[in-house]
Amino acid sequence: MSIAQTLADAISTFTFSDLPDEARYWARIGIVDTVGVTLAGASEPCAQIARKVSTPSVGRSLLFGRTERARAIDAALINGTAAHALDFDDCSNTLGGHPSAPILPALFAFADEHAVSGRDFMTAYVAGFETLARIARAVNFHHYDKGWHPTATLGVFGACAASARLMALDAAQTATALSVAASFSSGLKANFGTMTKPLHVGHAARNGLLAAMLAREGFTAGSETFEHQQGFFNVYNGTGKFDADAAVRGWADPLDIVEPGIAIKQYPCCGSTHPAIDAMLMLVAQHRLTPDQVESVVSWTHPRRLRHTNRPEPAGPLDAKFSVQYCVARALAQGRVVLSDFEDDAWADPAIRRLMKRVIAEPDPLAAQQRDHFGAEIVVIMRDGRRLSQRVAKAAGRTSQNPLPVARIESKFIDCASHALSLEASRDLLAMLWRIDELDDLASVSALLERGIEQDVRS
Amino acid sequence: MSIAQTLADAISTFTFSDLPDEARYWARIGIVDTVGVTLAGASEPCAQIARKVSTPSVGRSLLFGRTERARAIDAALINGTAAHALDFDDCSNTLGGHPSAPILPALFAFADEHAVSGRDFMTAYVAGFETLARIARAVNFHHYDKGWHPTATLGVFGACAASARLMALDAAQTATALSVAASFSSGLKANFGTMTKPLHVGHAARNGLLAAMLAREGFTAGSETFEHQQGFFNVYNGTGKFDADAAVRGWADPLDIVEPGIAIKQYPCCGSTHPAIDAMLMLVAQHRLTPDQVESVVSWTHPRRLRHTNRPEPAGPLDAKFSVQYCVARALAQGRVVLSDFEDDAWADPAIRRLMKRVIAEPDPLAAQQRDHFGAEIVVIMRDGRRLSQRVAKAAGRTSQNPLPVARIESKFIDCASHALSLEASRDLLAMLWRIDELDDLASVSALLERGIEQDVRS
Repeated sequence: MSIAQTLADAISTFTFSDLPDEARYWARIGIVDTVGVTLAGASEPCAQIARKVSTPSVGRSLLFGRTERARAIDAALINGTAAHALDFDDCSNTLGGHPSAPILPALFAFADEHAVSGRDFMTAYVAGFETLARIARAVNFHHYDKGWHPTATLGVFGACAASARLMALDAAQTATALSVAASFSSGLKANFGTMTKPLHVGHAARNGLLAAMLAREGFTAGSETFEHQQGFFNVYNGTGKFDADAAVRGWADPLDIVEPGIAIKQYPCCGSTHPAIDAMLMLVAQHRLTPDQVESVVSWTHPRRLRHTNRPEPAGPLDAKFSVQYCVARALAQGRVVLSDFEDDAWADPAIRRLMKRVIAEPDPLAAQQRDHFGAEIVVIMRDGRRLSQRVAKAAGRTSQNPLPVARIESKFIDCASHALSLEASRDLLAMLWRIDELDDLASVSALLERGIEQDVRS
Repeated sequence: MSIAQTLADAISTFTFSDLPDEARYWARIGIVDTVGVTLAGASEPCAQIARKVSTPSVGRSLLFGRTERARAIDAALINGTAAHALDFDDCSNTLGGHPSAPILPALFAFADEHAVSGRDFMTAYVAGFETLARIARAVNFHHYDKGWHPTATLGVFGACAASARLMALDAAQTATALSVAASFSSGLKANFGTMTKPLHVGHAARNGLLAAMLAREGFTAGSETFEHQQGFFNVYNGTGKFDADAAVRGWADPLDIVEPGIAIKQYPCCGSTHPAIDAMLMLVAQHRLTPDQVESVVSWTHPRRLRHTNRPEPAGPLDAKFSVQYCVARALAQGRVVLSDFEDDAWADPAIRRLMKRVIAEPDPLAAQQRDHFGAEIVVIMRDGRRLSQRVAKAAGRTSQNPLPVARIESKFIDCASHALSLEASRDLLAMLWRIDELDDLASVSALLERGIEQDVRS
């Protein structure tokens, strides 16, 4: 059997009873977190422009943060872009990216067109997550290092597999859908720091859903699209730069959403800046640092991650999310890093700009001795001559072994959701999402999302 | 200036007066041929399914072969898929693919939403063609050989540049559009021989148009998306496997649509099978061959092209278009290769299947001595012991130096267009397209296309 067929067999026979309690727990976390950041991201210009070029669209699928509905593939594009607009959505170490942002907008869009139970929704989500994780194991981290944006290039398979499962496609249709999705895979790191990065995710969500819809209607595609000489692995990664067997080895044993699990972001900026922020905040708290005490800050980041976060002079809010210099300066100045640091003109704040000149970003000299690429170190040279340092092996929330407390996940959700909904609706929504697998019909989620709108996000 | 900016400067300042007579002539040929094959392709299942998953769609852009209109990006997807459905559309040797199928559906879709003159339409088409040809010069033929489908992966830039020109975007917006398009580039050769191949082209047309629409609304993208370390050239081709300067060298000097020009396909199957068909037909005509005189046929094709045309047992009509064995057997049996050979169950015809067992496809042993990869040779072993052979250096119509007679282009158009339109409307449309650059408003083309429908193609 081909790789697409083997994966399709696993996807099409995956059921709710295959989800252990931990998987259900983490699926709820992923859903809560993604819905929150999507509501906060819906008012961002990237999502607004994606909406403008996609309308008028006639359909039943809700645009998050609005009282407007659209065709499912358009809603997947717009909500997918919103989900990643703030770069505040969950991460997967297997993927080297954001697993839920391409998957869940496709599922919510489809669910609004059909009567879908919470159990089937959750089953589809975990099946999509597992699929992208298996394919990621075959291609990473060469895939990531090379310049592909895995959230999009692999996320399209997650969105596709999840959509295929929710549509209850059979194995042959699911294999076709995955093969079509391979021809839709795209997204370049050269566009990081611009609106095109979140657009990649909306594009992947839309295309994964579309691939499943095409397969359902009898579309045809190659049968060996992954392993073919001119197929996904050879063309995207290059001969000898992948492990094809890893894609079909160990399905759900354990489920990737459980182990290594998902990372929930504490800060609304690129995950590669988080360990440095953690380290800076620890020093601020421990020594009650203020910027005027500090001569300079040296920020060490793993070279793989510094490549896209070394931005001493960010040129806009999105660029600032990828600037480790900006994030570390904000952490030092305020003792926290929050959504408003990346809104409006905050990125150009003169006091922060002056402070950034004293933040030197360097590749971590200890990188070669590390087991992974999640660590960072901050060294502070004080004006009084002291030298303070803090090393962080892994940002808090980075894996399911090192989780954020649920209270912090909830407060993040309320902060995010209340960008679009009333506080009361935000709380009701949170309560509903915590028991999503008990819902008879997902329509109750979008009904509450629509009813709870304080006012449509600015257009 | 970055590559995107340099190209954008050339695109945004390109005018009708920059088109020499030869370019206008070839642009008319490209438009006539593409409109014809799109009308013939509109009833194919791939186009019908693309329509089904994209509707309802509310807009003003005509779906070719129907009396139905849709949103421009949906029409570009559906008509783009139809344009390539039969693999009968024009080719470019620079591209290693089909230049007009991704561009013109985007332009027709946009033109239906705005008052667009024939001159502006033609200018935009040639600007898009030139853009994809320049980028192709930078990446081919490694790009082609590796397994990318250039009609899609590079066609998206043609559709984008043409759309940007027709929208009269400025240079900065055009550069942004090209950078967004780079993140949309996709299409794998592993899906050749299935409905996904023409879908690639619709996807590219839609995405190129979408990229320009996003840029017009103020979207942002990277500024060095082609030459960036994690940009289009390095990621799609690989370090050292491209010539970045070729993308910005020699714009319009001469225009690629003039030299080497476009190839018009005589046969409705993969261009890589055409020289072998030409050679077989020459032998049939010269020696009045019939299948029962023939012991076996050896068909030599350049190895680069045999890789995707060596299909001894095609499994369907689309697969048969890529089977050099099937095409050569049809040429021997009938003395011609026509649309009906790839319709319904013709691919499984038992007499042709028996004949195919006597057709042996081999890599051309003389390939290493050839200047290019367009040649083929047929050797026929006769039952009476004779050995006949015919070598063809280049199929007729392959370049503007070796053009098909206009009468054959016109008869191909009428054959194709009359799949959807009345014969009278087909003739009127041909006359209108021959003077497209004199039209004040392209709306007259889609009005005639709509009025001339005999009946909507089957759904």
